[in-house]
Amino acid sequence: MKYIESVKNPKVKQWKKLHTKKERDLTGTFLAEGYHLVEEALKDKDQIVELIISEASEIPSSWNLDGISITMAPPEVLKAISDTETPQGAAAVCRRLEAKGSDSWSRVLMIDSLQDPGNLGTLIRTADAAGIDGIVLGEGTVDLYNSKVIRSSQGSIFHLPAVKGEIGEWAGKLKERGVSVYGTSLAGGFDYKTVQSGGSFALLIGNEGSGVSEELLGLTDQNLYIPIHGQAESLNAAIAAGILLYHLRG
Amino acid sequence: MKYIESVKNPKVKQWKKLHTKKERDLTGTFLAEGYHLVEEALKDKDQIVELIISEASEIPSSWNLDGISITMAPPEVLKAISDTETPQGAAAVCRRLEAKGSDSWSRVLMIDSLQDPGNLGTLIRTADAAGIDGIVLGEGTVDLYNSKVIRSSQGSIFHLPAVKGEIGEWAGKLKERGVSVYGTSLAGGFDYKTVQSGGSFALLIGNEGSGVSEELLGLTDQNLYIPIHGQAESLNAAIAAGILLYHLRG
Repeated sequence: MKYIESVKNPKVKQWKKLHTKKERDLTGTFLAEGYHLVEEALKDKDQIVELIISEASEIPSSWNLDGISITMAPPEVLKAISDTETPQGAAAVCRRLEAKGSDSWSRVLMIDSLQDPGNLGTLIRTADAAGIDGIVLGEGTVDLYNSKVIRSSQGSIFHLPAVKGEIGEWAGKLKERGVSVYGTSLAGGFDYKTVQSGGSFALLIGNEGSGVSEELLGLTDQNLYIPIHGQAESLNAAIAAGILLYHLRG
Repeated sequence: MKYIESVKNPKVKQWKKLHTKKERDLTGTFLAEGYHLVEEALKDKDQIVELIISEASEIPSSWNLDGISITMAPPEVLKAISDTETPQGAAAVCRRLEAKGSDSWSRVLMIDSLQDPGNLGTLIRTADAAGIDGIVLGEGTVDLYNSKVIRSSQGSIFHLPAVKGEIGEWAGKLKERGVSVYGTSLAGGFDYKTVQSGGSFALLIGNEGSGVSEELLGLTDQNLYIPIHGQAESLNAAIAAGILLYHLRG
């Protein structure tokens, strides 16, 4: 166990830098804050580079910390590296989850140009619940390791692999492998309930405002819509994904 | 059309007060900010007490403002009454939507002790999309007219009636009328897919952390769960409601 005594320790500066995408990309690591997220990360210890624990807090007795590098620090340090208003007594520097075997995924969520970090986090959590194999993040999508994404994912970011990719290429490869590729569209296509559940599939969700681009909608097997029965103009992207993923997986 | 010239006008103080629940309850009105919400409110003009428009903005030519009381004001006024960082050039003081005929609703969403305003707004939007007749808000649920609820509802608050009520009483009355009452539970009950779609129903959604109370779960016809296939611990309340409402309505 290591100790640091002040926010002036150079490690603190290093940890704070992880709030920038540049530093996260450079180091391949990111910061997860709070007991719940640390607990989720601990389920696969290889993901943890080091834990930072406040001297003022107790380590939950259920945590198995064998082999984990731990740094104890005063509460001010936890506060300094946090981007929440009420920092908790634990944080972890984590490695990105490797997306092994992505070329055999048979239930895939593809996301194009999604902007809102809360939406992306909720999508990851929902896809995890629905038993998806992995996520493909297309260009223009908010950074996966943004702290708000991590928080909204409620820890699913530690369980569900995600890769950046070119959605058009992915659609082509998935179709070659016999995986049905479904776009989502407000403007037309098929009522999602007409699609048979239970097979392999890839679902493509688009930008909150403009949806999936016309170009990508042209590359899918079928485009699906969810009927709007009332006066709402649309569904939230994560809600739509939840309804469709649970329908498609059967 | 009326004009006000400064943020010191007493009307501005009155509008700002609508950010408190007390004043909203006292007056039976609330404030909706931004072009999209005003546009949704205009679909049923009886709901609008008055519009506040910035002199620096253009009124969209598609708006039919016949019979609407309008006050023009400098941009500072719109800024002063807004609780967003980037106020838009229009706001409306609105009357609460009357919940007519609630004793004949046959598709009902009941919400118990939901805390997060963003979640409640998204639930209202989702319930509107799913063609629900009305919403019952049980005790301990965040105020319906909280500005974040209104924003997240994306205008569905103007279309979908909601009443406050005692969930237990409502469950009893609905069952008497032959409406199936479904609770939601992580801990047991029936896989939602075993429930036949298409009939009349009332769905009960609970608190984000603790779900529906044991007491209320004892008053339903059946309690449903959504299977978790991956490692997520649960689904977001609004996502779960979306999946269940779209399944139940068929």
